[in-house]
Amino acid sequence: MAPHPLSALSLGETNLARDIVKDGYSDVVIQFRQILLHEPPKSQVTAFLDLEHAGKVTAETLRPERLALVTYDVIGGSKFPEYHESIIDLRERKRVGHEVVSADTHHGSLAIHEFETLVQVVQDSPLFQAKIQELALPEGFEVVVEPWPYGAPDAADGRKRLFQALIFARDTRSGNADSNFYAYPLPLIPVMDAHTKEIIRIEELATGGKGDPLTGKTHAARLLDHNAASEYVPELLPEGTRQDLKPLGVVQPDGPSFSVTDGNLIQWQKWSMRATFNSREGAVLHDIRYDGRSILYRLSMSDMTVPYADARPPFHRKQAFDFGDGGLGHCVNNLALGCDCLGVIKYFDGVLVGSDGTATETKNVICLHEQDNGIGWKHTNWRTGRAVVTRRRELVVQFIITLANYEYAFNFIFDQAAGITVESRATGIVSVVHIDEGKTSDYGNVVSPGVLAQNHQHVFCVRIDPAIDGHKNTVVQEESLPVRLDKRTNPNGNFYEIRKTEIATSAGLDAAPHNNRIFKIQNHSKTNPISGRPVGYKLTPPPTQLLLADPNCTQSRRALFARHHLWVTKYKDHELYAGGKYTLQSSLEVGGVADAAARNDDVLDQDLVLWSVFGLTHNPRVEDWPVMPVEIMQLHLTPADFFTRNPAIDVPSNKDLTSKQVMGDVTEAIACCKL
Amino acid sequence: MAPHPLSALSLGETNLARDIVKDGYSDVVIQFRQILLHEPPKSQVTAFLDLEHAGKVTAETLRPERLALVTYDVIGGSKFPEYHESIIDLRERKRVGHEVVSADTHHGSLAIHEFETLVQVVQDSPLFQAKIQELALPEGFEVVVEPWPYGAPDAADGRKRLFQALIFARDTRSGNADSNFYAYPLPLIPVMDAHTKEIIRIEELATGGKGDPLTGKTHAARLLDHNAASEYVPELLPEGTRQDLKPLGVVQPDGPSFSVTDGNLIQWQKWSMRATFNSREGAVLHDIRYDGRSILYRLSMSDMTVPYADARPPFHRKQAFDFGDGGLGHCVNNLALGCDCLGVIKYFDGVLVGSDGTATETKNVICLHEQDNGIGWKHTNWRTGRAVVTRRRELVVQFIITLANYEYAFNFIFDQAAGITVESRATGIVSVVHIDEGKTSDYGNVVSPGVLAQNHQHVFCVRIDPAIDGHKNTVVQEESLPVRLDKRTNPNGNFYEIRKTEIATSAGLDAAPHNNRIFKIQNHSKTNPISGRPVGYKLTPPPTQLLLADPNCTQSRRALFARHHLWVTKYKDHELYAGGKYTLQSSLEVGGVADAAARNDDVLDQDLVLWSVFGLTHNPRVEDWPVMPVEIMQLHLTPADFFTRNPAIDVPSNKDLTSKQVMGDVTEAIACCKL
Repeated sequence: MAPHPLSALSLGETNLARDIVKDGYSDVVIQFRQILLHEPPKSQVTAFLDLEHAGKVTAETLRPERLALVTYDVIGGSKFPEYHESIIDLRERKRVGHEVVSADTHHGSLAIHEFETLVQVVQDSPLFQAKIQELALPEGFEVVVEPWPYGAPDAADGRKRLFQALIFARDTRSGNADSNFYAYPLPLIPVMDAHTKEIIRIEELATGGKGDPLTGKTHAARLLDHNAASEYVPELLPEGTRQDLKPLGVVQPDGPSFSVTDGNLIQWQKWSMRATFNSREGAVLHDIRYDGRSILYRLSMSDMTVPYADARPPFHRKQAFDFGDGGLGHCVNNLALGCDCLGVIKYFDGVLVGSDGTATETKNVICLHEQDNGIGWKHTNWRTGRAVVTRRRELVVQFIITLANYEYAFNFIFDQAAGITVESRATGIVSVVHIDEGKTSDYGNVVSPGVLAQNHQHVFCVRIDPAIDGHKNTVVQEESLPVRLDKRTNPNGNFYEIRKTEIATSAGLDAAPHNNRIFKIQNHSKTNPISGRPVGYKLTPPPTQLLLADPNCTQSRRALFARHHLWVTKYKDHELYAGGKYTLQSSLEVGGVADAAARNDDVLDQDLVLWSVFGLTHNPRVEDWPVMPVEIMQLHLTPADFFTRNPAIDVPSNKDLTSKQVMGDVTEAIACCKL
Repeated sequence: MAPHPLSALSLGETNLARDIVKDGYSDVVIQFRQILLHEPPKSQVTAFLDLEHAGKVTAETLRPERLALVTYDVIGGSKFPEYHESIIDLRERKRVGHEVVSADTHHGSLAIHEFETLVQVVQDSPLFQAKIQELALPEGFEVVVEPWPYGAPDAADGRKRLFQALIFARDTRSGNADSNFYAYPLPLIPVMDAHTKEIIRIEELATGGKGDPLTGKTHAARLLDHNAASEYVPELLPEGTRQDLKPLGVVQPDGPSFSVTDGNLIQWQKWSMRATFNSREGAVLHDIRYDGRSILYRLSMSDMTVPYADARPPFHRKQAFDFGDGGLGHCVNNLALGCDCLGVIKYFDGVLVGSDGTATETKNVICLHEQDNGIGWKHTNWRTGRAVVTRRRELVVQFIITLANYEYAFNFIFDQAAGITVESRATGIVSVVHIDEGKTSDYGNVVSPGVLAQNHQHVFCVRIDPAIDGHKNTVVQEESLPVRLDKRTNPNGNFYEIRKTEIATSAGLDAAPHNNRIFKIQNHSKTNPISGRPVGYKLTPPPTQLLLADPNCTQSRRALFARHHLWVTKYKDHELYAGGKYTLQSSLEVGGVADAAARNDDVLDQDLVLWSVFGLTHNPRVEDWPVMPVEIMQLHLTPADFFTRNPAIDVPSNKDLTSKQVMGDVTEAIACCKL
């Protein structure tokens, strides 16, 4: 059977793409970075989907092309490796596109083997070993080399492909491999040339506090003497874990309410969608419909950036693009039953490639489950006393990534009232550097002795490719604005105006919660029969702080997407990444959403894309240490005159029979079953 | 045993207060409105709590005074009823305070018997019956009279005590008493004088659309002919309820993790607090501590206002203060097991009084339960692959009110990382008026034929009386602000400044999410030993839209509290209500938070109170009909350098053993137990 056009590449397809690429070369080494589905042109897919939803797909139906994007280095002769990208037609078994990307223009995304090399090269470096020697680590401490992308290059770096490492020490004396090394940051950042595999320098970090100079060594000879253990694995907690938390389980005796068929087709409570996984974006959802009506063509995490605000060089180079930089695939968590979710869980696997291009299955990278989120709707008739109350059941598609110290859980959440929530939970260990004893800093907060957690931001971009009852949509900004008392039009001063502004040209737009500014994605060719207004969905832009870095600095210029809360652009095939295709070691965002918006395309009644930007300015608290409690951010998409009534009005209001009531005083001695 | 000073009045105490009041009068009728605990002066309570938490309370301990506030009308002779308030000392069994509140100054809060009278008087009114006759209701329709507070009086109303009623028709032909009468609004508002119990006029409402005049009859002779049924009770849904939602239950086989002792002392996961219920504020929490350390002295919903924005008179008088107006007690839902919450639930009862002052128990008005809210914190060690993940368990104290058409669920939520969330869920049926066939309006949205849901706002105020490690606290505004690239201080442009501003004088303050503005409540006499910063809690003001009505109009002047997102005032005994003690039929907020702030009190290192204001500008969607899906609003209080690490770091990361995994395709035929 031909794969569905909205399915990710299989193991076999991935290996086939590898083979076709390799067949094109001889006498060189090919080192692979990523192999991804190159999604077919939307026009081909929508033609197919129209037939599919009409039940008219047969063996003869013309299917969209099936393409793979393969990115790889060609290493041969005396030349530096060359970075190539090929498009492989898997049905025709041939290369149909090819580009050599010069390092003078862009760097290819990072591959996990580069990080492995970095760790080894740093550890083997005599220069590094000498610097470590100088730090006079206490007995029993080992050195931990944590690989990081380099951030933006300085002028002196030229076009070299560079990586940096943060260095920590780990107390090995517990004999527990998971003792927390982040409690012992060392003030060194080695920098490696990825081509020569050489340490080209080791930056010695300032460790001072308020009023100290931005550069220069100030730390004590035995700098770790004032640091302290900061454990989080339960067996290393000095006082153990709390003992009074009783189990709380979720049971679904009749199984889940969702079905998963055809490999990736999810159906649940009138919703249908397809889920894929790829190493650039994680989980991606396609062809999202409710009750058979199209809502979104595609929903994905497009990119994010995490710039650090410590003014001392080289900390300006601590700026990750955790999606664009390329390490995401290997950073996705393999989710384990009963820890990451409750209830009945369906896991999806993904496909990753090693440096030799061989595809391997990575297990359980997406999980699917239902959750209860409190009351869904309720009304009590005051005349009869009759209460009707429903629970709000939600379907969650989740993936979680670990990026060295830090983790993000991304949830696409669907509810029975046809709402969509994109949720990001930030957790993990905040990024820290050494600080001298007794000092405090304007650049962060001391979260443990000798440990400065630097101020930073997380800015996410969610890409929303709408298809509100079709592909020709319009975005309308709506604000609720005060109106002066006026004898004729507002005699009692209570009226306020809803002002609507069509977004006519592609643009970056901002949140304005004081004006209750929301954006409606509407189909102007369809009218709600009840209200007479165009059918649509409402996007409420989270009014979070945008990028703080000086607009003229590199940190800011390479993340232009982070300058507005919402971008509206005209759809273009393969324009998926807000920060551009090449963020690794970029100095400027190229080919990202800012460039797309700058085309000044007409976006009235067009196939368009919305890019929602929101985030968290994270000035760490002591309570974020050693592992921070989740910070939850949410983006909401809700129907606005899309339906003719509350879509959840038909949710049954059955009593839940597993609930129990406890009477009188409740003491620890009372177990539930007795009540 | 003497009642705890932080316990609500018992049935016996309430009846005792009634008796003592009645004993003070003869030859008059006393009609009671409310009997509430008059909380003792904070100085007395804190002295007691200090002893209590030190384990030093004995039978001899001097206890705070035990007082009741009784509000009632004295009806006698030829005079109009007089509104009185008395303070009763329950231990001394005597009246210790008394005030006659003149209707020239304020109106006493409404009592449920006034609403009952209103319904009867309207129904009996020949004038009303004649107006109904004119409307030529279809066969089988009955008239529904819905009582409302009057809103603010117009100049012509003088100081009369007035009530208004919205009028609907109900299709009785289904024989189901719960058929939805809001689908048939009638354009009449009768107004009753509460003293004379007479209908003083009946307003005939404009029913036009865009461009139509603000007053004057335009509706068709048989105006309901274009309306349609809008049912929500399951047995009346034309197509029934959806059948594919499988049960999802929460099980706690070992019982809850909380204990409830001494009637109202809740202990859970290092938290302790006392819960009370009263008819003015609903659930109130007192003496909130974590791990024995004081955080809040008191937490409550202080007030809310719901102004409607339809410019046509008399809709400016649709403005409820659902707490201050006084009807709350009888509007609190009696929560039923398994519908309003899942899991193991503890219910608390409340005490209400009837017009004769007799106390009755109202069952299950507060519920207490635990809930799972996803991942609490997680980290995977990239070197070892070891993942440690905890769930986020929460404790929820909930009460729900129904105000005619509308409901609010208020949740005080506590998490294991020592965070507090105050959540409001708005649901129920939006308030509607009649609109002529085929018309649309600038004042709202047509949600069903002939039914205009008017634009409106919900503005809530949460009163937070902090006690961060003691009662002398300071509020510090913190903003993250951009800093220009500067060779010396910000050489790479990535630095941003955290600017701190102490709030020195009582004031109204605003959210500024573009500056990441947050407010820290700190104790400046205690320093976090790790960070060196004052211990504190962080309040993130929800940056929602404030009141839109013209500042010079009555709707706005009687809700001054809704003009700022956060008020900081100096604590004063019994200053509890943001909108003032008397909101019913007020023209101006008096004695509310604006007046408290205007004292210009020194609030540096003082006993202070924070009042957090947030809300929802609600321009109804068709999807809000007939019962709207919950709109969720949240206020967050989180520790900020209050603890020396993540307080949830000791939460166990046990696998949940009730979860199940489904393999391969999932189809409806697969029941969970087979998987």
